[in-house]
Amino acid sequence: MNIAIAGLGLIGGSAAKALLRAGRACDGYDLPAVLERATREGVIRAAANSFAAYDVVLIALPPDAAMRLLDEGNFKEGAVVADFCGVKGALERCVYAKPRAYRYVGCHPMAGKEVSGIENADAALFDGASIILTENERTDPEAVRLLEGLFAEMGFAAMPHCTAAYHDRKIAYTSQLAHIVSSAYVKSETADGFPGFTGGSFQDMTRIAGVDEELWTRLYLLNLPAAASELEGLIAHLQEYLSALRQADETTLRALLREGRLRKAALDKERRIL
Amino acid sequence: MNIAIAGLGLIGGSAAKALLRAGRACDGYDLPAVLERATREGVIRAAANSFAAYDVVLIALPPDAAMRLLDEGNFKEGAVVADFCGVKGALERCVYAKPRAYRYVGCHPMAGKEVSGIENADAALFDGASIILTENERTDPEAVRLLEGLFAEMGFAAMPHCTAAYHDRKIAYTSQLAHIVSSAYVKSETADGFPGFTGGSFQDMTRIAGVDEELWTRLYLLNLPAAASELEGLIAHLQEYLSALRQADETTLRALLREGRLRKAALDKERRIL
Repeated sequence: MNIAIAGLGLIGGSAAKALLRAGRACDGYDLPAVLERATREGVIRAAANSFAAYDVVLIALPPDAAMRLLDEGNFKEGAVVADFCGVKGALERCVYAKPRAYRYVGCHPMAGKEVSGIENADAALFDGASIILTENERTDPEAVRLLEGLFAEMGFAAMPHCTAAYHDRKIAYTSQLAHIVSSAYVKSETADGFPGFTGGSFQDMTRIAGVDEELWTRLYLLNLPAAASELEGLIAHLQEYLSALRQADETTLRALLREGRLRKAALDKERRIL
Repeated sequence: MNIAIAGLGLIGGSAAKALLRAGRACDGYDLPAVLERATREGVIRAAANSFAAYDVVLIALPPDAAMRLLDEGNFKEGAVVADFCGVKGALERCVYAKPRAYRYVGCHPMAGKEVSGIENADAALFDGASIILTENERTDPEAVRLLEGLFAEMGFAAMPHCTAAYHDRKIAYTSQLAHIVSSAYVKSETADGFPGFTGGSFQDMTRIAGVDEELWTRLYLLNLPAAASELEGLIAHLQEYLSALRQADETTLRALLREGRLRKAALDKERRIL
């Protein structure tokens, strides 16, 4: 099985290293300097100058570049082509805009670091992590099975399947909203001089405030209604706490915090079961 | 030096264990069942039936109970009395409402767990943590030095000093706001079925959603203007992101995320320096 990885940044580079660890050498596609480094370090076998020779192509590019490649790439007939973008509906719309000779599966690895680039790529990045596979009536089950085999080799431990719409709604909440909250949280003037004044809550709340604005702006724009709706919902909930604080309404504030505690306990239970 | 600890929950129990580890046995004050357990397990030497015999009293009670004790307790003349509450202005106002024979120092250990009670007390809870000491023109420097010695023995690694007002402003942001955000965050309907759809951001954002609503309602009410003002500020920032999303305003969204990234980098730098 001939595999090419398009985009050898943190995710693509880690995918190449993880597959190499499992005994599979892949070819790579990226800018010349990255390809040179990846080849020299043995992360990839060779540069992929065309995709026509590959049975499997894993696309680890930012969403616009991924869509361009999915639209214009010269893939082998029947090739399994998967992308790793953080939004899935927009990718599907691009792929299904016309008939394709390749078999597409949208994927989203739930792993990352706060750093990027092949210099931070890590064969163990996906160990124990989850990768979401999106499916619809056009998805080829054999292509899915083939990818699941590769993902297992890469170290992934969970592979939930869902529609692109379901993925985009969930991710708008678990990831996209969290990144906006973190980004907004650091903007208080009170943040200066915080060391010594926190036991960890502040660090947790702000860990992901440093996102790459180019990539994330596109991810939000490509998942607009879901992202906006989650943010709207959170602001509405926060307004309830604010109104209780402003009125020094102890009963309401207690009820709001209690509701949060019970909800959190229910979610923790769900996590233990699944 | 005779030391009594009032309140043998997670914080008070851990303080007793940490001091014991350092070779100091303390007496304790709590409900009979807790005292019985603490004595049986050797966490304390004996029950403190009156505070009149103690050179140092550490108060690890919820804020209202702490204020009652500070107001009505029969402390030895010149005794060093410290409380560990999460708000400090309200405590100072209570203490300084009339002349006191004891020497008061407001303290706030920056350590905790998501569980409570003496059954979770841990001699190592404070190791490497920070404890804030609040000072004003009435604070006795010798009392502060004595406490700093004890806190060092307990494992604390940093002891910032500040006024109660400064403390309450900082804590409203680094801790109180974070707990409201976490509590509000879990309330989205999209939270159901999250396992497999997160790589860690969601867990960080919601770790502290399960606060004890009795204790925290009081902490918010006792720090009202600061807590409300931080929440107001965060909501205003979040509205900017929401407005950009609603208008699909890529330029503004990119600028907002970029500002967050730069702010986060500046804060990380501050953390490395301090």
